[in-house]
Formats: sequence, structure tokens, C-alpha cells
Amino acid sequence: MKIFVDFLMPPDIQDWLRQHTEGHELLLPEKPVTSVLHKAEWDPQMEVADVVFGQPDPQHITRASALRWVHISSSSITRYDNPGFRAQMAARNIIVSNSAAVYAEACADHTLAFMLAQSRQLPSGLVTRTAGGTETWLQLRSASVPLRGQTAVILGYGAIGKRLTELLRPFAMKITAYRRKPRGDESVPVITGAELPHALAQADHVISILPDSVETECFFNADRFAMLKPGAVFYNIGRGSTVDQNALLQVLRGGLIRAAWLDVTDPEPLPDDHPLWLEPGCFITPHVAGGHQNETGTLVRHFAGNLERLVTGKPLLNRVM
Amino acid sequence: MKIFVDFLMPPDIQDWLRQHTEGHELLLPEKPVTSVLHKAEWDPQMEVADVVFGQPDPQHITRASALRWVHISSSSITRYDNPGFRAQMAARNIIVSNSAAVYAEACADHTLAFMLAQSRQLPSGLVTRTAGGTETWLQLRSASVPLRGQTAVILGYGAIGKRLTELLRPFAMKITAYRRKPRGDESVPVITGAELPHALAQADHVISILPDSVETECFFNADRFAMLKPGAVFYNIGRGSTVDQNALLQVLRGGLIRAAWLDVTDPEPLPDDHPLWLEPGCFITPHVAGGHQNETGTLVRHFAGNLERLVTGKPLLNRVM
Repeated sequence: MKIFVDFLMPPDIQDWLRQHTEGHELLLPEKPVTSVLHKAEWDPQMEVADVVFGQPDPQHITRASALRWVHISSSSITRYDNPGFRAQMAARNIIVSNSAAVYAEACADHTLAFMLAQSRQLPSGLVTRTAGGTETWLQLRSASVPLRGQTAVILGYGAIGKRLTELLRPFAMKITAYRRKPRGDESVPVITGAELPHALAQADHVISILPDSVETECFFNADRFAMLKPGAVFYNIGRGSTVDQNALLQVLRGGLIRAAWLDVTDPEPLPDDHPLWLEPGCFITPHVAGGHQNETGTLVRHFAGNLERLVTGKPLLNRVM
Repeated sequence: MKIFVDFLMPPDIQDWLRQHTEGHELLLPEKPVTSVLHKAEWDPQMEVADVVFGQPDPQHITRASALRWVHISSSSITRYDNPGFRAQMAARNIIVSNSAAVYAEACADHTLAFMLAQSRQLPSGLVTRTAGGTETWLQLRSASVPLRGQTAVILGYGAIGKRLTELLRPFAMKITAYRRKPRGDESVPVITGAELPHALAQADHVISILPDSVETECFFNADRFAMLKPGAVFYNIGRGSTVDQNALLQVLRGGLIRAAWLDVTDPEPLPDDHPLWLEPGCFITPHVAGGHQNETGTLVRHFAGNLERLVTGKPLLNRVM
């Protein structure tokens, strides 16, 4: 098979992939993408490729007539997740898989890092030089709210949510997952639409891992934020489009929620004059939750594992179409 | 019994303690201490007290002739832990207990918060406004080293270390505890002196919870820091006196270790012109690891539990003498 990879690999990882695709032909891009969040340009090699691994433009997939399998290098498949594309893939018998497994663990780590940084008041603690016994010091200590026994709701429960619940187990938290379509294999109680307001009103921690879609656009609007328990902490490691940022700003300013920890915003990065940058209770990282050392290595190993599965007729991991 | 409490309690907690010491006489201080880290002044009520709860000056304990039990409001007992004081307590049949259980959980949380903030590069991630795909962004992502499967050595393994190993279990780390006198009830493999250099050379994370004592003074000196694996991360939530801060500065400046996360320093706070404040890989919180919401409540409940044990003839929790 001809395997087209649309992104740049470090030489050692490229060598590793070459070894693990022996017997196949590896096609490398002339204009590689710089990030899993960016689209690739058209590359004529796609016309002959049996397999594409990366972030191919859906229109390029339409032009790539030999395709059998598309392996997306991100966890998000928003660019591809529409009825038209799905119908085309089904009609052409093209398998589509993604890289959810590659980023889930890092995303769960990042979320727990957010939760503990909040619980332990790290943003204040790391900048103060206050002395023991002062009023500032006493306030800093007493602002640390232990996670133990607290309540959390996770919205958009998939691989990240599952791993996060594993990480949170020692804290004996009461965790509920919100999922449009429960599958029955969740490790925590699952709720759907009607039960959400009650769950939001109970939760000390509201953790959104919602993907970008027509249904999730501004899911967290003023009405939903108003459902939150006073003093709750809001986390977003899903997609920025799922939050009405003005509504978020208002509940932060009004002191209705304690803090917001965001790895995603809309747009990314936020404009320099965006008021969320200045909000004391708002903490933002630049869409790095899934990032980790040797990420390309993890990505390429995940792909090679799926290639092996394809060749030996086993079901692919993270198959999405 | 006459119970002297040397610190200030919020009214609701004082009421709670009054209810839970019914039948006893509660003596409150004229000049309460402001912090568990500070000594109290002499209070004549100590002369008649059967029980003292707080941070009594050892010399005041000598003057308090009716004493049967001293309950220290901190985890550290450095002020009392010397042969002369121990001999006096033994001769006078005075029980001494501390509040280790009160702070262990928060200290373990704080340590994991440090470890995950380091792993997820929060100090850099929370200040950058970099866009996806830039060199800065790629570097930030790839600097995130997952805790999963990494190696850690915990020095000074007690209640905090035990809780920390529980919190770290989902990360499947290889954890070793260093303890002068292994008790056999540790939940991880324990090493003593001779094995320490090897353990330090293996560890990605060196976590010191060592107490302040003659033996631990500058335990982490230039020689010991030189034993660390290149790129290791050093954490101190024990006592500042256990670290030679000049030696730490040198290994940070030389890039021999990746970062240092300190909740304790010597002195506290460090002087404003101390070079550790400016070191990019050094992160300092102001001795707040044990702090938590309603800390006085936890402290007072722990004391009341021990009072109940004393009255009913059960062994006290956290008895240290």
C-alpha cells in the first residue's frame, strides 16, 4: 500500500515508521502541516495513496480516488463529522480512524493539573512572598479547598473522561458523566439531557470535554451557567466554541463561580484585549492539554498499530467511520 | 480536666469545641498565637492546665506543673524533639501527640499539584499567549513529560508519603521510600542510607518530606544534588533547613536538574533579593502545603477525637512521646 503522511516527523521517528511500514510505500509531504490543528495543502501524492495519515482537507479526500483508510492525527474529527462526508466514506468503503488514544492521557493529566492547581491555589501561592502568620497567608491557606469528597460532573464522557475518573479515584469524589448517548460501559453514573440541570446545581467541579458540533455551539450559555452551584469551578478542555465567553465573563465578574480553567477558547489565542485575560479567576493555557513529550512518536506508534490491525484484518482502534 | 488552648478559634469552632469538651473546663488564651509556626507567649492559665493544645513553648511546659497531655497543633515537633524534653515528659508522665493527620492529606495534594503543574508545564502555559502551530507552542507541548511510568523517591516517608503514594497509584510510577527506620508497614519498597545514592540516580522525581533535625540539616547539599539523575525534578515540602540553597541554585543554574518546587525555604519567606526567586526553574509557595479550608475545624476535631481517646483509655492518634 501507498501511505501518505502529511506532517513532518523528526528523523528518528520517520526511521521508526519506515521500519514499521516495511513492504509498504511511505509518501512524505512537500509542504508538511505544522500542527494537528491546521489543514494540509493539496499534495499530488494523495491521488495515488491507499492510506492518508494526518489532517487531510475533506475536499482533498474527495479527490484522492485510491483511498481505503484515513487516519486522523487529532482527537477532534469536527472537520469530517458531517452527514455528507460520512455518506461519501460509506459509499467509497473508506475506513476513518482518529488519534483519541494518543491525547486522552495527557488531556486527563492536564485536567487534574487544573483541578489541583485550583484546589491548592497555586496561581496565588506561586507569586506571593507573604510571611507565615499574616492575614494574606491565612487567607491563602484557607482558600485551599480539598478535592476529597467533592462533586464533579464531566460533560462529554469518552477516553479522556474515563482516564480522568481513574486519576480522581483516590479523591473519593462523587462523579457523574453527561453523555448524549450512554453506551453502558462508563465507569461512573451517566446522565442525559433532562438530568443535567440537577447535576450542574450539585457540582463543585464542572468539567467540559464537549466536542465542537452544531449541538454544542455555546452549550455553556448564560442559562446553563446560571444553573451552576455558587462557587463552582468550571473547566474546559473540549472546544472553545462550546462556551459563550461573554456569559462566562459575567458569571466570573459576578462571583457566581469561583474560577474558570480553560485550555480552549474561541478564537485561539484570544485577542490581546480580550477581558478574560484580565479576569483574576480565569486561567488559560493555549490548547496544549493533549501535548506531551515525543507526541509524534506516540502518534506514529498508534498509527502503526492500526496499520498492523488493518493488514491482519482486526478491528481498528479509535475507528470513527 | 482543665484544657488550655493557646490559639484563636472562629466562634463556630470554639462553640463546637465547647460542646465536645463538656464536663471539662476550656481555658482560652489572652494572647493567642497567629499561626502553627509561631510560639505562644506565657499564659498563667498554663499553670493549672491538665491539657495544653497548641504550640506551647517548651520552657512553659516545664513551668506548667499540672500537665498530663500536650497536643501539638502542627505536624512538626522539632521544637520539642530533643533528648532533654523527651526525658522530662517521660519523667513527668506527660503524653505528647501532634496533628500530623490534620495536614497529611493537604500536603499530599499540594505535592501532586506541584508534580502535575510541572508535568503539564502550567507556569509557562498559563502566561503564554502563543498561537497553535508556532515554535513556542510546539515546545510547550513537547516539554510536558507524563508522570505515567516515571520513577520517584520519597524521602521521609510518613502519613504524607503514604497518602501521596495513594494519589500517585493511577500513574503507575515506580516509587521508593527513603526512611531512617523502616517500620514494615510502608506501602512501597523502603530503602535506607546505603541504597540512597542509587535511588537518587534513578529518580525522575525526588520528593523531600524530611523533617527539621540535626541529622537532616542541609541533607540536600552539593554532594547529594550531584547524585540526582540529569533532568530530575526536586520537590521540598518538608523543611527548608534540609536544603543547602546555594547548592540547589547551582544545580538549577547548571541545568543539572529540570526544576525545583519548594513549599519551604530557609528563612521563610526568602529575602526579596534571594536569587532563587529569579531562577526560572524554581517555584516557591509560602509554606502552605498543609493549609486547607476550615483547617482550624479539622485541627479541633482531631484534638477532640484524641481527648475522647484519653478519657476512655484508648491509645492516642499521632502520639509522638
